[in-house]
Amino acid sequence: MAHDVDMQIAFALYPGFTALDIVGPYQVLAEVPGHEAIWVATKKGPVMDHTKNLPITATHTFDEVTNPDVVVVPGGTTYDINGPINAWLRAVHPTTQWTTSVCTGSIFLAAAGLLDGLEATTHWAAKDTLESLGAKYSETRVIQQGKIVTAAGVSAGIDMALTLLGKMHGDVMAQAIQLAIEYDPQPPYNAGSPSKAPAHVVELVSKFRGLRPNFE
Amino acid sequence: MAHDVDMQIAFALYPGFTALDIVGPYQVLAEVPGHEAIWVATKKGPVMDHTKNLPITATHTFDEVTNPDVVVVPGGTTYDINGPINAWLRAVHPTTQWTTSVCTGSIFLAAAGLLDGLEATTHWAAKDTLESLGAKYSETRVIQQGKIVTAAGVSAGIDMALTLLGKMHGDVMAQAIQLAIEYDPQPPYNAGSPSKAPAHVVELVSKFRGLRPNFE
Repeated sequence: MAHDVDMQIAFALYPGFTALDIVGPYQVLAEVPGHEAIWVATKKGPVMDHTKNLPITATHTFDEVTNPDVVVVPGGTTYDINGPINAWLRAVHPTTQWTTSVCTGSIFLAAAGLLDGLEATTHWAAKDTLESLGAKYSETRVIQQGKIVTAAGVSAGIDMALTLLGKMHGDVMAQAIQLAIEYDPQPPYNAGSPSKAPAHVVELVSKFRGLRPNFE
Repeated sequence: MAHDVDMQIAFALYPGFTALDIVGPYQVLAEVPGHEAIWVATKKGPVMDHTKNLPITATHTFDEVTNPDVVVVPGGTTYDINGPINAWLRAVHPTTQWTTSVCTGSIFLAAAGLLDGLEATTHWAAKDTLESLGAKYSETRVIQQGKIVTAAGVSAGIDMALTLLGKMHGDVMAQAIQLAIEYDPQPPYNAGSPSKAPAHVVELVSKFRGLRPNFE
């Protein structure tokens, strides 16, 4: 296994991001020797998550990060898709090795024009928004189109990051990290997607405070 | 669904905790209306994770939190099992509704004497340590003994928290959160436990820098 890689992984932050969206990929990608994990936002300092109890500290501003090797954009519940992150994505995407998103993070990629005509995924409740911005919604957990990799809602970031790690450093590294984080999932219910959950649960979540992306 | 619950969920922090261990349960439990999520450590302020790139800010000191309804203890790679968290666990456990751990967090529970003679789980690489502290290691993802619920390594905290949520508020709430975080896992590899991963991957992870708990 190569230990001499030297890659900057830029995790984007904005007020209202969803913590697990970004910490899942962080745990997978930041663990790898030679990976430098940085947290990027409009300004340095704490950025509050959508549940409003877990600020993550931005270590860099968007202006300072001009050449990241990998970009990871998390989803969230309320945000400005035309804000500073939009210009940053347009600026850095041409030179990234990988540009990725989790959950409604793909809405940012689409708003920046990176997904025009491409297949992509997002949180199941945001598929219409994704399509309205020019992407073709794919009902998949993780989908790659060239150097863009998008993931479905929240927890799908773990699957995305392991998939990405395999592409970056090979299967053994990805399997090693999967084993290290003991990712042998055994959900106690089978309600993780709208097609599997009981109809009354789908209806409930669609109304649920704070869990459905709000683009209005 | 009851929206009038009022429960304090105390997430314990210490230097060297593993971020995903605690953010998985946070995303599941903090999302529920009426749940108050607090971060507890020896002193207020940032506490660095084991990967050394994601400090989480403690909002409360152990001294201030005398009556939490739920305690969640994450695992980590290096820590003092006889430090302040030990006394805090002994003090608050008698009045919690649930005392829980993820990964090597169960080592803290065991060191505090809470697992004497009980079945519990932990990160696969730490099972001998867990047993040396008086617990009976169970090779399961999530196990309940009375009001104590322990989970296997890192990502198992998501399964633990959904299991716990079902016990706290019923299946519909747990299913709703599972759907909200789109927890329909599809790992790209089948290497999430030592019994499933290739032998050379198990060997590699056992030597891997920073990923195996270090109790020395």
